Amino acid sequence: MIKKLLIANRGEIAVRIIRACRELGIETVAVYSEADKESLHVRLADEAYCIGPTASAKSYLNFTNIMSVATLTNVDAIHPGYGFLAENADFAEICAECNITFVGPSPEAINKMGTKDVARETMKLAGVPIVPGSNGIIKDIDDALEIANEITYPVIIKATAGGGGKGIRVARTKEELIKGVSITQQEAQTAFGNPGVYIEKFIEDFRHVEIQVLADNHGNVVHLGERDCSIQRRLQKLLEETPSPAITEAKRKEMGDAAVSAAQAVNYSGAGTVEFIFDHNTGEFYFMEMNTRIQVEHPVTEMVTGIDLIKQQILVASGEKLPFTQEEITFNGWSIECRINAENPDKNFMPSPGKITMYLPPGGLGVRVDSAAYPGYTIPPFYDSMIAKVITYGATRAEAIAKMKRALHEFVIEGIDTTIPFHLRLLENDTFVSGDFNTKFLELHNLTVK
Amino acid sequence: MIKKLLIANRGEIAVRIIRACRELGIETVAVYSEADKESLHVRLADEAYCIGPTASAKSYLNFTNIMSVATLTNVDAIHPGYGFLAENADFAEICAECNITFVGPSPEAINKMGTKDVARETMKLAGVPIVPGSNGIIKDIDDALEIANEITYPVIIKATAGGGGKGIRVARTKEELIKGVSITQQEAQTAFGNPGVYIEKFIEDFRHVEIQVLADNHGNVVHLGERDCSIQRRLQKLLEETPSPAITEAKRKEMGDAAVSAAQAVNYSGAGTVEFIFDHNTGEFYFMEMNTRIQVEHPVTEMVTGIDLIKQQILVASGEKLPFTQEEITFNGWSIECRINAENPDKNFMPSPGKITMYLPPGGLGVRVDSAAYPGYTIPPFYDSMIAKVITYGATRAEAIAKMKRALHEFVIEGIDTTIPFHLRLLENDTFVSGDFNTKFLELHNLTVK
Repeated sequence: MIKKLLIANRGEIAVRIIRACRELGIETVAVYSEADKESLHVRLADEAYCIGPTASAKSYLNFTNIMSVATLTNVDAIHPGYGFLAENADFAEICAECNITFVGPSPEAINKMGTKDVARETMKLAGVPIVPGSNGIIKDIDDALEIANEITYPVIIKATAGGGGKGIRVARTKEELIKGVSITQQEAQTAFGNPGVYIEKFIEDFRHVEIQVLADNHGNVVHLGERDCSIQRRLQKLLEETPSPAITEAKRKEMGDAAVSAAQAVNYSGAGTVEFIFDHNTGEFYFMEMNTRIQVEHPVTEMVTGIDLIKQQILVASGEKLPFTQEEITFNGWSIECRINAENPDKNFMPSPGKITMYLPPGGLGVRVDSAAYPGYTIPPFYDSMIAKVITYGATRAEAIAKMKRALHEFVIEGIDTTIPFHLRLLENDTFVSGDFNTKFLELHNLTVK
Repeated sequence: MIKKLLIANRGEIAVRIIRACRELGIETVAVYSEADKESLHVRLADEAYCIGPTASAKSYLNFTNIMSVATLTNVDAIHPGYGFLAENADFAEICAECNITFVGPSPEAINKMGTKDVARETMKLAGVPIVPGSNGIIKDIDDALEIANEITYPVIIKATAGGGGKGIRVARTKEELIKGVSITQQEAQTAFGNPGVYIEKFIEDFRHVEIQVLADNHGNVVHLGERDCSIQRRLQKLLEETPSPAITEAKRKEMGDAAVSAAQAVNYSGAGTVEFIFDHNTGEFYFMEMNTRIQVEHPVTEMVTGIDLIKQQILVASGEKLPFTQEEITFNGWSIECRINAENPDKNFMPSPGKITMYLPPGGLGVRVDSAAYPGYTIPPFYDSMIAKVITYGATRAEAIAKMKRALHEFVIEGIDTTIPFHLRLLENDTFVSGDFNTKFLELHNLTVK
């Protein structure tokens, strides 16, 4: 069993991991950049060490300094959280070389899922539905045109090494395809050093539905149901919920089984998420990608299953077997998460770092707050702008929404702008309340004022 | 359905009620004494009115002023919370006369349960086990001696009008009984204007186990399981949990049925609690009293049943039927509540009112905080000293304890003394952890330092 663990992260997820460790009786080591000296994770951990200057590349991504602290403090494990080094196979490799447990899957699994066309082919072989398209990288423009004719327009051109919305281009006609392939290849060469692109049918009207999986090192893989993350702004999730208003029990089982197959195909270990394009018009779903780490929105799954995902990550990494079978996992009630960012929603979500002069998180029944903020805390402008996750739980979607409105209404954050007013408008929106929307919801509904 | 509700209370329970109302779409009216102008319940309610000076008798107990605000603001209901007017039958009567719904049982039910010997006789008739003793008030000292011989010493002498630990005296011998009856009668005459006393067998080694009941106005009564409140200091509960470590499923059913009978015997309506003396040596239980109101420790029941007790109170008062049958109520996991008081546990729990200079409640999975505190809030010295209830939920008792230790460890309250260090010592105590203790736990275990 892991006795001492280093958290190679900051913010709310570092606090989240420290909480799980404390409950498990595991000692914690925090690391921090110079800008994060006054952070909550630094205060809550048993030990804390500065690993470099403000820039992430020199601190939270700094292998050498992180491994030095790990060795110095004699930890037996490192939890990478999300972002930073969470999906860095090289880092996972170095941990293994240093005999330190990386809380996550193997470097091989990270690599297989991190390369888009490899992941696509692996899923195809495993029988997981993928969007119709090319078999791997396209050979040339004629190849592309032939495939496009087969799968029909519109199509989407994707750089295999791309990510985060970069190296992606839609083509609705033959002309757009010819031009698009060429531009995307050039861009990909420049941005990622790899010109390879592939083509897929472009599905426009879909919901983002993802399946949480959990696997141990003894061959057991289960899924913990879906999360609907269709409420996005520029591919950034703003609100997540489980169950999805669009998913039936039969569909949950079908998608869950597919996600388990996906995990098995790469000998997955730990917590992971298989993201799907869910075509709510046809009921078909297609593999989008797998995130080989804990996700920001993991709490909603914890609320409806009663399973602590961070603890399970740590227990699996310690070599333990999953303490439940698929049949023993039950789903109760409804949970919603709102990501509260230090941004001004009415000024194009402009970041609003600065000092929180007054802070009082909401409380009471069915309200959970995961945050690293506190009264007097100064949010640095250097990292992501999320300051709190508010998670509500109710017997029904209506109750979870009512609780979220109540919770956000009483959440006091003064001194900076936040996205709370935006979320309150979202929760009042009829289309949102109906549950019938797709990933274009925020393009179609203007929720900003002025 | 109730549309607008006045909360005749202050502190965390006022905040708790406002939260439930907001989730139900009910407008709220807060009332406050001059000392409570800056209170959180005043800030959170839709409207707020001062009802008098600091002294409770002139504000929170001031019928006239409260009813004036109720009439002026056109509310259709008043929720009394706990304490103050919650078990005042006259106030419930006045509400009825003014056509305002009192969120609670009828004045008759309050009266029957509020008079100790009447409650005892009512329970006896209803088949609820009572502690062996006199049939109502003792006639004279010979009557008392005869009963004591029958039930054997030690016995306890209780003033029928007593309460809160007053008008109670133990007698271990004939001599003590003769003397004790006389003194208690005199005291009771002076303190309560009623010299009536009765006698019961004195059970020394017992656990305080109470059953939550919920009844509607359509003849439905259910119980929501037990709470174990054996951790007390001078009859003040400090930690409560559910389930009780001492109660089996069969015993829960037996006690639950008895509590339902108790409620039925007085045509109970709303949420109430039947408190029992549970003799863990024999498994026998005896009616202690019924609290005809919501209790401080109600959250632990909410955590394991998923039922919002305050909402149910309001829905029942609105005339709705209970939305579940006894069979549909299930109990999952374990929940513990710690009452955090502004007191110095190492100075004999001396109250420590004053300004909270820094405040950060704990968060994360399985942690709930019900509180009216905030950074910069000044706790007035005039009312009770409870500043926060921390409630944790886990799959097992061990997990609920681990979560509570983690939560209390990270709870930041600066500027005043609190009982957090005391609770942390309690949670580390082997006897507490074993679950095998009685109401004398805090007399037997010195958890204070110095």
